[in-house]
Amino acid sequence: MTTILMLNGPSLNLLGAREPEIYGTTTLADIEDDLRRRASQSGATLGCFQSNHEGALIDRIQQARGKVDVIIFNPGGFTHTSVALADAIAAAEIPTIEVHLSNIYRREPFRHHSCIAPVAVGQIAGLGPYSYVLALEAALNLLKEKK
Amino acid sequence: MTTILMLNGPSLNLLGAREPEIYGTTTLADIEDDLRRRASQSGATLGCFQSNHEGALIDRIQQARGKVDVIIFNPGGFTHTSVALADAIAAAEIPTIEVHLSNIYRREPFRHHSCIAPVAVGQIAGLGPYSYVLALEAALNLLKEKK
Amino acid sequence: MTTILMLNGPSLNLLGAREPEIYGTTTLADIEDDLRRRASQSGATLGCFQSNHEGALIDRIQQARGKVDVIIFNPGGFTHTSVALADAIAAAEIPTIEVHLSNIYRREPFRHHSCIAPVAVGQIAGLGPYSYVLALEAALNLLKEKK
Amino acid sequence: MTTILMLNGPSLNLLGAREPEIYGTTTLADIEDDLRRRASQSGATLGCFQSNHEGALIDRIQQARGKVDVIIFNPGGFTHTSVALADAIAAAEIPTIEVHLSNIYRREPFRHHSCIAPVAVGQIAGLGPYSYVLALEAALNLLKEKK
Amino acid sequence: MTTILMLNGPSLNLLGAREPEIYGTTTLADIEDDLRRRASQSGATLGCFQSNHEGALIDRIQQARGKVDVIIFNPGGFTHTSVALADAIAAAEIPTIEVHLSNIYRREPFRHHSCIAPVAVGQIAGLGPYSYVLALEAALNLLKEKK
Amino acid sequence: MTTILMLNGPSLNLLGAREPEIYGTTTLADIEDDLRRRASQSGATLGCFQSNHEGALIDRIQQARGKVDVIIFNPGGFTHTSVALADAIAAAEIPTIEVHLSNIYRREPFRHHSCIAPVAVGQIAGLGPYSYVLALEAALNLLKEKK
Amino acid sequence: MTTILMLNGPSLNLLGAREPEIYGTTTLADIEDDLRRRASQSGATLGCFQSNHEGALIDRIQQARGKVDVIIFNPGGFTHTSVALADAIAAAEIPTIEVHLSNIYRREPFRHHSCIAPVAVGQIAGLGPYSYVLALEAALNLLKEKK
Amino acid sequence: MTTILMLNGPSLNLLGAREPEIYGTTTLADIEDDLRRRASQSGATLGCFQSNHEGALIDRIQQARGKVDVIIFNPGGFTHTSVALADAIAAAEIPTIEVHLSNIYRREPFRHHSCIAPVAVGQIAGLGPYSYVLALEAALNLLKEKK
Amino acid sequence: MTTILMLNGPSLNLLGAREPEIYGTTTLADIEDDLRRRASQSGATLGCFQSNHEGALIDRIQQARGKVDVIIFNPGGFTHTSVALADAIAAAEIPTIEVHLSNIYRREPFRHHSCIAPVAVGQIAGLGPYSYVLALEAALNLLKEKK
Amino acid sequence: MTTILMLNGPSLNLLGAREPEIYGTTTLADIEDDLRRRASQSGATLGCFQSNHEGALIDRIQQARGKVDVIIFNPGGFTHTSVALADAIAAAEIPTIEVHLSNIYRREPFRHHSCIAPVAVGQIAGLGPYSYVLALEAALNLLKEKK
Amino acid sequence: MTTILMLNGPSLNLLGAREPEIYGTTTLADIEDDLRRRASQSGATLGCFQSNHEGALIDRIQQARGKVDVIIFNPGGFTHTSVALADAIAAAEIPTIEVHLSNIYRREPFRHHSCIAPVAVGQIAGLGPYSYVLALEAALNLLKEKK
Amino acid sequence: MTTILMLNGPSLNLLGAREPEIYGTTTLADIEDDLRRRASQSGATLGCFQSNHEGALIDRIQQARGKVDVIIFNPGGFTHTSVALADAIAAAEIPTIEVHLSNIYRREPFRHHSCIAPVAVGQIAGLGPYSYVLALEAALNLLKEKK
Repeated sequence: MTTILMLNGPSLNLLGAREPEIYGTTTLADIEDDLRRRASQSGATLGCFQSNHEGALIDRIQQARGKVDVIIFNPGGFTHTSVALADAIAAAEIPTIEVHLSNIYRREPFRHHSCIAPVAVGQIAGLGPYSYVLALEAALNLLKEKK
Repeated sequence: MTTILMLNGPSLNLLGAREPEIYGTTTLADIEDDLRRRASQSGATLGCFQSNHEGALIDRIQQARGKVDVIIFNPGGFTHTSVALADAIAAAEIPTIEVHLSNIYRREPFRHHSCIAPVAVGQIAGLGPYSYVLALEAALNLLKEKK
Repeated sequence: MTTILMLNGPSLNLLGAREPEIYGTTTLADIEDDLRRRASQSGATLGCFQSNHEGALIDRIQQARGKVDVIIFNPGGFTHTSVALADAIAAAEIPTIEVHLSNIYRREPFRHHSCIAPVAVGQIAGLGPYSYVLALEAALNLLKEKK
Repeated sequence: MTTILMLNGPSLNLLGAREPEIYGTTTLADIEDDLRRRASQSGATLGCFQSNHEGALIDRIQQARGKVDVIIFNPGGFTHTSVALADAIAAAEIPTIEVHLSNIYRREPFRHHSCIAPVAVGQIAGLGPYSYVLALEAALNLLKEKK
Repeated sequence: MTTILMLNGPSLNLLGAREPEIYGTTTLADIEDDLRRRASQSGATLGCFQSNHEGALIDRIQQARGKVDVIIFNPGGFTHTSVALADAIAAAEIPTIEVHLSNIYRREPFRHHSCIAPVAVGQIAGLGPYSYVLALEAALNLLKEKK
Repeated sequence: MTTILMLNGPSLNLLGAREPEIYGTTTLADIEDDLRRRASQSGATLGCFQSNHEGALIDRIQQARGKVDVIIFNPGGFTHTSVALADAIAAAEIPTIEVHLSNIYRREPFRHHSCIAPVAVGQIAGLGPYSYVLALEAALNLLKEKK
Repeated sequence: MTTILMLNGPSLNLLGAREPEIYGTTTLADIEDDLRRRASQSGATLGCFQSNHEGALIDRIQQARGKVDVIIFNPGGFTHTSVALADAIAAAEIPTIEVHLSNIYRREPFRHHSCIAPVAVGQIAGLGPYSYVLALEAALNLLKEKK
Repeated sequence: MTTILMLNGPSLNLLGAREPEIYGTTTLADIEDDLRRRASQSGATLGCFQSNHEGALIDRIQQARGKVDVIIFNPGGFTHTSVALADAIAAAEIPTIEVHLSNIYRREPFRHHSCIAPVAVGQIAGLGPYSYVLALEAALNLLKEKK
Repeated sequence: MTTILMLNGPSLNLLGAREPEIYGTTTLADIEDDLRRRASQSGATLGCFQSNHEGALIDRIQQARGKVDVIIFNPGGFTHTSVALADAIAAAEIPTIEVHLSNIYRREPFRHHSCIAPVAVGQIAGLGPYSYVLALEAALNLLKEKK
Repeated sequence: MTTILMLNGPSLNLLGAREPEIYGTTTLADIEDDLRRRASQSGATLGCFQSNHEGALIDRIQQARGKVDVIIFNPGGFTHTSVALADAIAAAEIPTIEVHLSNIYRREPFRHHSCIAPVAVGQIAGLGPYSYVLALEAALNLLKEKK
Repeated sequence: MTTILMLNGPSLNLLGAREPEIYGTTTLADIEDDLRRRASQSGATLGCFQSNHEGALIDRIQQARGKVDVIIFNPGGFTHTSVALADAIAAAEIPTIEVHLSNIYRREPFRHHSCIAPVAVGQIAGLGPYSYVLALEAALNLLKEKK
Repeated sequence: MTTILMLNGPSLNLLGAREPEIYGTTTLADIEDDLRRRASQSGATLGCFQSNHEGALIDRIQQARGKVDVIIFNPGGFTHTSVALADAIAAAEIPTIEVHLSNIYRREPFRHHSCIAPVAVGQIAGLGPYSYVLALEAALNLLKEKK
């Protein structure tokens, strides 16, 4: 059976709880529930993990080796600084789809560079919580194409 | 009724015709047909336009002002050099989703910069022809959220 | 008799039609009419040409060789990227005055560099539609000084 | 009642214990005690937290949301590299004063850039342990001005 | 009544006196007289000030606060280095038109950057002494548009 | 039978017509006639195309796919800016020899970079109209080696 | 007896007089009076000097040699450009505390570099007029530690 | 008795387990066993610690202060990004030898810079698992020279 | 009588001897013989010199002053680093044609810059041993044009 | 009669008065007296001027036009920042010899660039007060060669 | 039988002879003797060559082709500048171990880049004369692994 | 007795022989004779050495160790590229005065950087052959001051 892992990096656990007038009221739990339900409708299992600790995310990626088919990953602030996370994805040999809620190219210059992008299959950015829905569809399609 | 415009830049008309062992045998016409069908199932109309001429793409974007709800745009090689296309999108005031077949961050450094990204709503890259399918879903969702 | 050519680059044909609260309601046609009238009062003829096509602008500059005395040129988005337009101006050997509606030094860093500036006689920027009026006066003065 | 949180990043727990001829014999505990006493004299409560773990610092900042009035933060080596900590401060929406014991502009070039500075209210640097005392006064003054 | 202040920076007092075969024989006094006359014909008063001292120019700009409607400013060599002059213009809150006799983009690379440009309304460059005449017209038009 | 395509970019149609004291009196037509004759002597056919339009050059390269054995290309001002032309050459899978009349390394720094060079077989530069003759010989030799 | 010199650079004399809704109504005179009073309560004398002239500030720093114990210095726009002021501070051999009203790291990139920082003891920035109060306390503490 | 600490950073625990055709079948445990045995033959004790957590590595370095004679450190992906680890080594005052399995200068440009190198005694890179053996010899020699 | 000098820099003496499957089996001696024969057929003399010593190449260029009509020069690895060789060519006042076997723009970035290019007449690169044949023809044509 | 002007920039008036163990006990007055005597022995007059004010130095250079034969100039901290001083020297059309007491290439990187160097005849640096003596000899030789 | 070549670049012949308090009293001859003895104990022959001439080092590397199994190379000052030496190593197809006595990352920035590193197997740096001993062991191990 | 060594780098042996209308007719031999005579008048011996070989210059500098009191060095084209020469000077521990005939700051940007400057005592540049005379005086003064 298909297993998908959704990883979220630092501060993404605050989604929906802060500045609802800007970010909306959708929480990370809402997104996780929605994706779990959608995955299950497609006959897949979705695991979810959020952490503010780079090391914990690396540990989680390592555990996924050989058990997870695709990773959906929003690395938050680690996007722009973590070579170690990129190495972990490369070592895990699991196709990974990079997701961002906002269009990082409209923000500060240091957000235009992603350490993760060169080891990801592809990127989906700027479409708010719906970015995750598209990433799930991309993940399912990726697995369909492989078979 | 919802109207979506799919724009493709230089050399994308060769899709499927060249190096099929690498790029697959899906042609641009196949993608356009698939998306037109999907759009119509969702009650939307999809217009398609490809050109190797930067000016022709700008003309087409200008014509779309006030008539098109979302643009799906793969600017090809113009992605990295065309301020004029970015200005045209900004002037047209039509939400635009940037699409790339390949993961541009795995390629030459000059492909890591997109002139279009700062004026786009978001980006979908690296997922092959399926990138367009996701872009269409993103477009439809964008319009749903607006209402 | 003195002949002046006013060239406008991509998206400048939308002037006045979009966001009138910001850019005002003066259209490119209004500016062209105003300048044509002013030129004629000074005993000069003003030709006008706008295009979103870099190649069409180069073609027009080539046709002007030996027939036009001064070019007034707002290259729009091509300002920052077009070596070919700069080469065309140099090859045409027609004194050219670069015009910008906005102060390009208050905008994004990529707008601070002009490919056209080193081949222009001078620049007039930031004064809105009145920039064109000043450029016309500069053109007429240039011709007066030559005699 | 006013609540202030003093955060210290990696290796600052060694303060006073190493190279006393250079850094003096004041330990982090001494500084914490001194500031706790000073805060209490001003009717404020000071909480203290030091960690070598970026993730632990982010967790602590998240817990402070809605409970802490000002953060005094010496991010140590994370100053120059952590986008995630800067994002956490921005998300916590707690005014933060950046503190450095040494004048970072007299040291290696990579120490001249602070990721934290753009999300901080202000910086106090180069005045040794007294930098923290000044930061506390700045914190108290900030709260006084708000009322 | 409308009051305009024309400021000239270092070495511009030598205009006309040196290398007349290159710069012509028009002196700064000639330009000042010409502009004073033109201003008066338009019902405006023109004050003139030249200094080789950055501080004296800042003092003059400060005195102009609340008394001068537009500044015409050729900052000479300070164009490329003076943050303090740019701050003074911003603080004075007087619309300022930047003027250069030569096309600074045809000269050494360090002359391509202007510290003043981001706080000016616009720039007029490369048209010799006639640059000042155009700047005066721009100034008068600016005031007309405001009313 | 061997087919060679000679492409020339913007402003190269003015060759010989302008500044004959510098560029000589050889026109592009002269060069084309000379090369056509030389090609025919070697049993090859030479097609010629010049355009100021980047898109028209891309169209022409696409039409050459499967029909042309070698391209001789002087991209003029597009040399330094056109990713789209480089992509078109790569997509056409036709060996291409880059030609320049002048030594681009003796000119402005922006002319030292060629977008086309990485997709070309080789470069011939700085030898005036004779550069084209050498390119033709290189083209014929390339085809001879292939057999 | 302890003597402290407070120096303020260009445009800081306008403090409080301009844009009170942003910068508050505290004038430089208010700050100087407040600090003079605070200094005197601590048994110290505070001298004050403001100038828009870099040379006048250097002269004042030179006069302070051997007479002043600490300098509190807000160099305004000279912060980012004046090597001569930094040299003057180094030559005067008087410990200097750099002060900024605003957080210079939240502003334009050219404001992120300070020429003065490497010769200062430390920096206090971003805390408005209270920055000066903290600088005074830092100065007094510095002198206490020296004894 | 001599005590040596071998530290390994993120993803090095996967050594030998992944892509054995490239990295060989030697696991980190094999290397640790081999080095422990070699150290003991030289009358030294070798402690080993691997972590994916930057903070855990810093904690471990701090615990080593005053107890460990030399550190052998392969910082993995943290090599290129961690100022905090470099500060921890400097603060621990334990001579440290930097080790890399691969020649980092043959890989991506971002791997050419090491934050750790300036605080290390020396580097050994590119010799596969044997790099660790050499580092142990270097460590033992360092201690011999000290006596 | 016409005299041409062919210079080859470091490691070019190994041509043909190493990796014949890549570089072919043509040795430098083969190329030299071929060019000597071709030169002689055109009534010219070709001298040949290869050295791994920058100084020996400079000595040889100096000896050529006033005796050699054109230099054909493949500077090998010195291309990218030797100002002294460029100065020697400039001082010798002998027109020089720069040759490269490979397309240096398809290789590492440090190979994209040539110190020799600005003092050469032109460049021929990427056409393997045939590059030398074309350089000889360019040399002969250069001399023909001079007469 | 020959007239030479020696100019010294900011903080050079402190020479000899500060840190005599480093800079020696020679004061600027000593140097001026020594050079005046040496000049007079060679039948030349030496004028001296030192200022901390960039504007005063520019004023002095302007007054020297047509009256002074050579300028000897140590611009101190203005060396690295003053375009206005360089423009003044160029405008004065007086040959100028740049002098530095210390070897500026052994100091901070920002001291490696001189704005003055491109308009000076030559530079003498690093030889302490004797740099001025050599500059005087250079000045006298310059004048001898002119005759 | 195994043959190893130890190469040393410019100024390394002065080792031990200069500044013995810093570099120790070990001469290059001592190191060569020690390594020759160690090599012979392992059944290998060690050849040694030092030169201040880049060309002589390239000549020596070329002679080693097909005769030497591993090169141990300390390129001295050529490390940072010699593309020709790197090309020679690549052409010789002999595995090469780069050695440095000092930690080049603690020295001037221009010493952080090695032209040789990308063509070497690995690097050993910072361990003084013992660096060579480790390089020899690395060489012997390399050959053992190959068999 | 005082011994001075004058070193000249590549192409300086052509001095006077080439382009006499620009460089004058003074040959290197003339300069060497003049300096030898001047040195002898001051009771010093001057040795002279010119080479186009970097290695030969390093060899000569090494031979000078302990025998030569000052080196006068014009490194020609090696100025901008040779770390090895700079290392040789540092290793020789002989005070060295860098000389240039031309003002290198008026020439191409790559000539603005000197590898030699940081290890030289000082520089004399731009004064033609007289630069050497001044360097000799500087050398003699240096030795006088040492005593």
